[in-house]
Amino acid sequence: MTGHVSIVGLGPGGPEHTTPAASNALAAATDLVGYGPYLERVPARPQQTKHPSDNRVEIERARTALEFARAGRQVAIVSSGDAGVFAMAATVFEAIEQDPQAFSAIDVTVVPGVTAMVAAAARLGAPLGHDFCAISLSDNLKPWDVIVERLKAAAGAGFVIALYNPTSKARPRQLNEALEILRGILPGETQVAFATAVSRPEEKIVLSTLADADPGCADMRTLVMIGTEATRQLTMSDGTSWIYTPRRAETSL
Amino acid sequence: MTGHVSIVGLGPGGPEHTTPAASNALAAATDLVGYGPYLERVPARPQQTKHPSDNRVEIERARTALEFARAGRQVAIVSSGDAGVFAMAATVFEAIEQDPQAFSAIDVTVVPGVTAMVAAAARLGAPLGHDFCAISLSDNLKPWDVIVERLKAAAGAGFVIALYNPTSKARPRQLNEALEILRGILPGETQVAFATAVSRPEEKIVLSTLADADPGCADMRTLVMIGTEATRQLTMSDGTSWIYTPRRAETSL
Repeated sequence: MTGHVSIVGLGPGGPEHTTPAASNALAAATDLVGYGPYLERVPARPQQTKHPSDNRVEIERARTALEFARAGRQVAIVSSGDAGVFAMAATVFEAIEQDPQAFSAIDVTVVPGVTAMVAAAARLGAPLGHDFCAISLSDNLKPWDVIVERLKAAAGAGFVIALYNPTSKARPRQLNEALEILRGILPGETQVAFATAVSRPEEKIVLSTLADADPGCADMRTLVMIGTEATRQLTMSDGTSWIYTPRRAETSL
Repeated sequence: MTGHVSIVGLGPGGPEHTTPAASNALAAATDLVGYGPYLERVPARPQQTKHPSDNRVEIERARTALEFARAGRQVAIVSSGDAGVFAMAATVFEAIEQDPQAFSAIDVTVVPGVTAMVAAAARLGAPLGHDFCAISLSDNLKPWDVIVERLKAAAGAGFVIALYNPTSKARPRQLNEALEILRGILPGETQVAFATAVSRPEEKIVLSTLADADPGCADMRTLVMIGTEATRQLTMSDGTSWIYTPRRAETSL
């Protein structure tokens, strides 16, 4: 009997943002593979085994999951947010390509989810209302000068920028450097938002500007949103604020 | 009694991709406002009124919804995919800002959804595994030269590119021009995918390359995905193909 691998995104945190397709894939699994804190978000079920790992050994985690499937198990690989955005989906295909003899007959499904950038945007208002990009600030997997080049290209061309993996204990300096680079291109009044643990009990939102943005507002669970010159703050009569980027761009670059 | 506006993304099409938060917001509404075909995807409920519109009058649609809320109704504004990505959320905030006296006391919630780019990526494999951007090809709301500049910046800096609104009856030429511009920057072998009506019965997927990509494969329901030089095609033993972008970038630009 051939097994199956579902690569599943749980959404940002609250179970109200996990799609029925994702819930169904989790319920159908005999084995759940993923970073420990993500697996803790999946309700325990009898006759289902959780295989938690740390967050650094992605390719081994993918191989483990594929080996279970090869042995006939129904496996769900669990990511937070969407599995295809800086998460496990690409890693699984890498692992298959590295060992096609073992893995190319395995039935694979990718189940999309609400990615962190979109969840943060909804909480903030509509900062992604115009063209935008997503950049992972982690230089574990790519040279820092590539990241610098992309920040410059994106800011110069008027993209809203969503920064994933803005900081970690091992990488405390990158976010500060990224903000410094952006300050050389965009006005100081540009809207910057730090959206941490969106839709979870510990959710925290900080609205700032590029001039004032404090990298200390970010941790591993933070999505940093950098507006364009057009991104605006709108204050409601109760004093709460939304940020949004108008759909219309009147002028050329 | 003050009303409420929920700005809701239904996800790409299949009800299995509509989050519980979105379903709850729809169920709680007294009035549903949105483009007709999107409202048809929402199950009919007694004591709930649907107000369908065409897809061109977004700001009027937003004002209509805000007026209902001002009159005490519980309104859901319905978008496909995610409401914050080239959809209604930014328009609602524009409408509030244009008439704060009328609308700034209205309670607003944005409910995130699975956006088309993420749904298409899951169906295709993991093309968004590395840094990426989203560009709307519609020049209804921005000058074409801004779009050209962004295509060049994104391709030159190594972003995967997701094209929203690639074509329509009123705009048949833009996608062809965009592909021509990208052919001047990226190799002809670059992976290009057309993902149409993902997760709906009429779903259609076409894998191609930049050299061979036929703009005729796209219609209004298509997400066009342009890989980077690193994006790869992986063929499984049953002959099906996935495309994915490795997480690792070994070399500088």
